[in-house]
Amino acid sequence: MRKMAVVGCGLIGGSMALSWKKAGIVNHVMAYDLDKVNLKKAKALCVADEIFEELPGAIGDADIVVVSVPVLSMLSVFSEIAPFLKKNAIITDVGSTRLSVIQAAKEGLGDKFSQYAPAHPIAGGELPGVQYASSDLFDKKVVILTPAKGMEPKHLAQMKAWWEAAGARVMEMSPQEHDEIFACVSHLPHILAYALVDMIAQEENAHAKLTMAGAGFRDFTRIASSSPIMWRDICLANKEAISNQLKLYRKKLDRVQELIDISDGKLIEACFENAMKNRRGLVFPGK
Amino acid sequence: MRKMAVVGCGLIGGSMALSWKKAGIVNHVMAYDLDKVNLKKAKALCVADEIFEELPGAIGDADIVVVSVPVLSMLSVFSEIAPFLKKNAIITDVGSTRLSVIQAAKEGLGDKFSQYAPAHPIAGGELPGVQYASSDLFDKKVVILTPAKGMEPKHLAQMKAWWEAAGARVMEMSPQEHDEIFACVSHLPHILAYALVDMIAQEENAHAKLTMAGAGFRDFTRIASSSPIMWRDICLANKEAISNQLKLYRKKLDRVQELIDISDGKLIEACFENAMKNRRGLVFPGK
Repeated sequence: MRKMAVVGCGLIGGSMALSWKKAGIVNHVMAYDLDKVNLKKAKALCVADEIFEELPGAIGDADIVVVSVPVLSMLSVFSEIAPFLKKNAIITDVGSTRLSVIQAAKEGLGDKFSQYAPAHPIAGGELPGVQYASSDLFDKKVVILTPAKGMEPKHLAQMKAWWEAAGARVMEMSPQEHDEIFACVSHLPHILAYALVDMIAQEENAHAKLTMAGAGFRDFTRIASSSPIMWRDICLANKEAISNQLKLYRKKLDRVQELIDISDGKLIEACFENAMKNRRGLVFPGK
Repeated sequence: MRKMAVVGCGLIGGSMALSWKKAGIVNHVMAYDLDKVNLKKAKALCVADEIFEELPGAIGDADIVVVSVPVLSMLSVFSEIAPFLKKNAIITDVGSTRLSVIQAAKEGLGDKFSQYAPAHPIAGGELPGVQYASSDLFDKKVVILTPAKGMEPKHLAQMKAWWEAAGARVMEMSPQEHDEIFACVSHLPHILAYALVDMIAQEENAHAKLTMAGAGFRDFTRIASSSPIMWRDICLANKEAISNQLKLYRKKLDRVQELIDISDGKLIEACFENAMKNRRGLVFPGK
């Protein structure tokens, strides 16, 4: 059986530990986390079998190393763990951006880059911390492999098999395509939700407004509860794609503002109708 | 016991019928709807006891008339029902805008305006139709009374008592304040969600993007499944307040774009952090 090291044992790292153990892929989890309170919780909640206050200790004995930290911290983690990696260990990460993290792995892992097989699970939750980890977080969810030069096909195939054993559906695309798509359907909505709540919170009657908000606002802004550091890093790491998407969206809003200001009911309805039809057509996997 | 007429027997009208009957406020529901299929469903699902293919038939015997139609249809409904209202009947509506609907009631109801006691329940769902109606839709939800000149305080007090009996929490504010607050926390998010889905749906790789979307996108865009006609009407009826909020939000996004483009991690994080703190502090009533 295999031992897994989880570097950054929060919602995602913790859920990987639980689900991969449940699937029988690993039987022992070693965790490291900068947040010592979170780390103790990981042990208390039986997400981790062993916890380590120093990063290298968690690595030396691991067959699988999962790096689950904010994307701009990846480089320093990769650099720090590289010297301690076992010869046959596979290292993976779960970051929300690919080009920047793959680059960080190249720099940080050096000649151990061939042991790296990254995968991005499209699953999560707005509240960070190992106490929200769940063994079924990835059930039926999509996990994306982004093969790139220098990665070992057999390690990627192994990663695919493991994720499938853990209940996920594995897809493949280029890192470039990944970053463009998720800039649009994930990063942009997070920014829009944060921006709306921050805007309202700074208004004079913020309290009156926020206490009146209903279920629409609740769901629209759920992701604004997400970790600011994680999402700051994503904005910086996937800056170009996000900047492009935000520009397109601002252009779209310019047009919508125009339609409202001239009371063009017909075109407002056409926009809403097209959105409605497309949105109702979507089916989301898992819970 | 009282008889209720529901004009527009969809999600909200139907849920009012069910919840007010459950609370013992009414014991007989008469429904009218332009959509004859929906109307038959209302009868089949026992939301309505009687259904009417012509509007006046539903009104003459009613003690309470609920108008639950898109806000720009309110004027014609009020005008059409005014001649048939019983002397002591109370007429209410559940529209999402107040200034325009109160004005429509003044024009449409004429000298029967004093029988009008509007209330806006902050509850709903993205999928329209009586099949989604539920007797507990308003449990613990906020319902807003917006007293205005010419309304009878005793009718408003009665409306408050009924809504409370149906499980809601009743608050009061001016129509103006209502329209400003909901332009911000309800109307704007709907527009933003519609705009995002419409934008993506028109892109070349729309399918790839939409099928990759996860739970964040799912919740952020849930309200983009809402009725385009209902929301077109809201945009036109509350145009000024919505236009102002959209301008403020576009300004906010200009600033966020700037911060991303210059990679100002510190200020991006500050924006996200303030949003996160405020969002996590919110508690939403009901289910």
